[in-house]
Amino acid sequence: MKIYDVGMPAPNPRRVRIFLAEKGIEVDYEPISLLKGEHKAPEFKEKNSLGQVPVLELDDGTHISESISICRYFEALHPEPPLFGKTPLEVARIDMWNRRIEFAVMGPIGNVWRHADARTSKIVKQFRDFGEANRDTAFNAMRWLDRELAGHDFVAGANFSVADISALCTIDFGRFIGLEIPAECANLKSWHERVSARPSAAA
Amino acid sequence: MKIYDVGMPAPNPRRVRIFLAEKGIEVDYEPISLLKGEHKAPEFKEKNSLGQVPVLELDDGTHISESISICRYFEALHPEPPLFGKTPLEVARIDMWNRRIEFAVMGPIGNVWRHADARTSKIVKQFRDFGEANRDTAFNAMRWLDRELAGHDFVAGANFSVADISALCTIDFGRFIGLEIPAECANLKSWHERVSARPSAAA
Repeated sequence: MKIYDVGMPAPNPRRVRIFLAEKGIEVDYEPISLLKGEHKAPEFKEKNSLGQVPVLELDDGTHISESISICRYFEALHPEPPLFGKTPLEVARIDMWNRRIEFAVMGPIGNVWRHADARTSKIVKQFRDFGEANRDTAFNAMRWLDRELAGHDFVAGANFSVADISALCTIDFGRFIGLEIPAECANLKSWHERVSARPSAAA
Repeated sequence: MKIYDVGMPAPNPRRVRIFLAEKGIEVDYEPISLLKGEHKAPEFKEKNSLGQVPVLELDDGTHISESISICRYFEALHPEPPLFGKTPLEVARIDMWNRRIEFAVMGPIGNVWRHADARTSKIVKQFRDFGEANRDTAFNAMRWLDRELAGHDFVAGANFSVADISALCTIDFGRFIGLEIPAECANLKSWHERVSARPSAAA
C-alpha cells in the first residue's frame, strides 16, 4: 500500500497525512512532481483519470482518489478514534461541516488560487476578474466560520473531526496565497491555534 | 421530522427525494420559495446559516443541511438497501465517485448556471466569460464520464449507489440549462436511460 503525494502546501494530500497522523497509521508516500507534470502523464492517469493527487494504491493494484474518500477507507478499517462520527446525527453533522468547509470556504479560496494567482497563470487559463472577486467571498466565508465557531472548540462541535482537518488545510492554504484570517475573527484565530498545536498538524 | 425543499428542477433537494424513494422512507416536505427569497430570510437562516435548501428538521429542532449529509443520516438509520457501500472499499469507491460527480461534473454545470444563464443574472453578479468557458468544461466532463462508464452499469461499478443519484440530478440539471449530453456519449446515454427508468427518478 502507498499514497501518491505532492507534499506541502497542497491542501488535499495534507488532509490525508493529518488524518493518518491522528489515527496513528503509517503509510508509504511516493512523491509526484506537479512541476514536471507527472500527475498529467498517461501512467498516472491510469491511477486517477482526473490526474489529481492524492491517490491511494492498494497492494492488489486498486486505486482510490479523493482525499476524503481515502480517509473514509481508513476510518472503516480503523474506526478509533472516530473522525467521521459514530451516531447517525454525528455522522450527518460532521459530513455537513466538512462539506460546508469545502464548498463555502475552500471553494472561493480555490477560485482565487486558480484565477488570480501569478503562480497558476502559466498553467491554466485565468478569468482574473472572477478570481479577484473571490477574495471578498473568501474573507466573508472566514467571517461566517468565525461566527459559527462561537461557543464550541471544534468545527462540528465539541470534538475534533475530519471537518477540522479540512478547515485547517483550507485556512493554511488561504494563508499561503495571501488570504490571512481577518483581524476581527477571534473565534477562528483561537480555533486555528488549537488545531495547529496538535502534533498531527505538522504532517 | 420534515424537509424544507424547493421542488424541481433544483438538483440538491432532488437528490434527497430520490434517495428516500430508493430507501422507501416517507418524510413530510415543506416548500420554500426561492422567488420570494424565503431561503435568505432570518428565520430560515436559523435553520441553515448558509441559506440553502434542503434542510432536514428533526423533531427536537435539530437541523441538518447539505443533501448528501441528510442522505447519510438516513443511511445510518436505515442501512438497507446500502447506497453508500458496506465494505471499506465500497464505501471509499462510492464516496470517490460521488465527489467526482460533484466537483468534476456539477462544478462546471453550476458555473454555467450562476455565471452564464439569463435566469440568474438578476440575482447574482455574473462573470459571463468565466461562465461561458465552463460550457466546454461541462461537455468535456460528460465525455470523461462516458468513458468511465464503459463496461459497467452504474457510476461506481456494478451496483446502483448515491453516486448515480448525484449524477442523475446533475445531468438532468445540465439539460434544464441547455447542456445536453453530447451525441457521441453512448455509455452516458444508456446509463441515463437506465437510471431514469427507476421509479425513484420521478421523485
